[in-house]
Amino acid sequence: MNALFQQVRRTIRRHGLCPPGTRLLIALSGGSDSVALTLILRELAPNGGFSLAGLAHVNHRLRPTADRDEQFCRALADRFELPIVVSHLDVAAYAATERLGTEEAARRARYAFLHRCAADLNADRIATGHTRDDQAETFLLKLIRGAGLTGLGGIYPRRGALIRPLLDVSRADLREYLKARGESWMDDETNSDLTNPRNRIRHRVIPELDASYGGVVSASIARAAGLARDDGTWLYSLADRRYGELASTDAAGVTFSADELSAEPEPVRRRILLKALREVANMREVALEHVEAAADILNGTSAGADLPAARLELQRGKLVLLRKR
Amino acid sequence: MNALFQQVRRTIRRHGLCPPGTRLLIALSGGSDSVALTLILRELAPNGGFSLAGLAHVNHRLRPTADRDEQFCRALADRFELPIVVSHLDVAAYAATERLGTEEAARRARYAFLHRCAADLNADRIATGHTRDDQAETFLLKLIRGAGLTGLGGIYPRRGALIRPLLDVSRADLREYLKARGESWMDDETNSDLTNPRNRIRHRVIPELDASYGGVVSASIARAAGLARDDGTWLYSLADRRYGELASTDAAGVTFSADELSAEPEPVRRRILLKALREVANMREVALEHVEAAADILNGTSAGADLPAARLELQRGKLVLLRKR
Repeated sequence: MNALFQQVRRTIRRHGLCPPGTRLLIALSGGSDSVALTLILRELAPNGGFSLAGLAHVNHRLRPTADRDEQFCRALADRFELPIVVSHLDVAAYAATERLGTEEAARRARYAFLHRCAADLNADRIATGHTRDDQAETFLLKLIRGAGLTGLGGIYPRRGALIRPLLDVSRADLREYLKARGESWMDDETNSDLTNPRNRIRHRVIPELDASYGGVVSASIARAAGLARDDGTWLYSLADRRYGELASTDAAGVTFSADELSAEPEPVRRRILLKALREVANMREVALEHVEAAADILNGTSAGADLPAARLELQRGKLVLLRKR
Repeated sequence: MNALFQQVRRTIRRHGLCPPGTRLLIALSGGSDSVALTLILRELAPNGGFSLAGLAHVNHRLRPTADRDEQFCRALADRFELPIVVSHLDVAAYAATERLGTEEAARRARYAFLHRCAADLNADRIATGHTRDDQAETFLLKLIRGAGLTGLGGIYPRRGALIRPLLDVSRADLREYLKARGESWMDDETNSDLTNPRNRIRHRVIPELDASYGGVVSASIARAAGLARDDGTWLYSLADRRYGELASTDAAGVTFSADELSAEPEPVRRRILLKALREVANMREVALEHVEAAADILNGTSAGADLPAARLELQRGKLVLLRKR
């Protein structure tokens, strides 16, 4: 299991996940990934310059086995003499108040809890058990949902205080490690429900890709996700800077010099337009066709366009994106 | 079928596939895609400002039905009064002479024939029948083979004289069009062989992705491929320019100032190193781990590295890539 520890150490070092003195909160569901995460970080802490502040477990009581999982996590915390905080939020009520679907409400409630929990336990980073398999699944999910524009980067090794030390290791290796140590974990029975897109990707698509390739594809996919993430991060930062230099903003909307915008390279121009449309239309989801509508005006193929929340026009050498009331 | 013609016209215009006066050679296999290509281009030619110079058919006699397909293509050419040129190359002999696998030999022989044929018929562009489905399949094949570094861009709408006017339309729409016109086509019986990775992607992986998504995923995948292609094309051109400014080349290899190279943004630095390694090692396939070995020397994690055909070292503030004899 030396290779497993080495890989986790490399991921931590490469992305600066645990600067010296870091106090870590671990998100523990009781599944194989987060149980392995707890064990591995416990082993790496003494020489890694970080310490464990405690464990956080979410029990939304949405699944029949939720209470069994909570008991398992409490027992693990006892054995390792770590504090554990458990959330019993009523997701249905939260979803109703916030006007969200159950899945999105559960996700937001979970992250809000983790951040509160980290503050309470005086932890500065929160580790989650996302693996290379989750990375490959997320990449494919984004791919089929057409997220090409906002990036196929998948899961980030770090997003603010959240860190994913297992992002370069496979679930199979983690389970082998747990078995070799005689450790158990809780299976989430909802993971076999094939009406859930992620489960279908995991249990049907990836095995078929493995068969096409004649090997394990999650490593290749995770690598592609990492490269796409690096490209995207830089291109967006470049577009942000150029947006600041090129855009004039007022109450009516955003204006660019058509010549200046046309002179930008396509990947940068596309991201400047994306940012402008999000600004003007206050749209969370700007689609590729909206960006292309703006590009068509710029290159003279179209005279103007009416989008759901914005009107685009060319006015005396200016591309104007007008906010609709 | 108006939408189909409109989409092909848009692809041609957007990528400048047929400048005024273009004489087109069409690669015709007899399958649904290339038969539809022939029919559609024939309809679009009069108003599109281009003309058809003729058809090219490859009969390598590798499949039992190869002669039947040739007869079908000759009949189609007769009916449309178009010249047709047929290649009967002995691929096995060609593969032996050129020391290539049969598949790679067939591919190269096919493209060499198409270019000769275009010259003979005085054609300036060669149209092939690649569809959005081929695009999605190629993207997934590149993805599982770990081509993240050299790009997930898939098939290009144009590569030199080769053009792909059907790259934004689906095979299903083309077949529907052919059926509506009462046209037939030849099925390639080797397309159902699931030991071939592309066929397995087509018949097993994509249907499972469609089921996960609840819709047709090839459009989303092709869109992502297009965006990745645009990003990659620009990032490589940027890296090419910076390579020219930063690299010192001599008989021993390539040298960079470590400080200058470290100051480049990661996506550009990675591509500069890729170019340098290809130059020095004369490697067609430089792997991501080779590029990362160079990056590790640059950031001080490693002192040097021995790659299959190059030795990498840090010498007084210079990153040196030495050619091995």
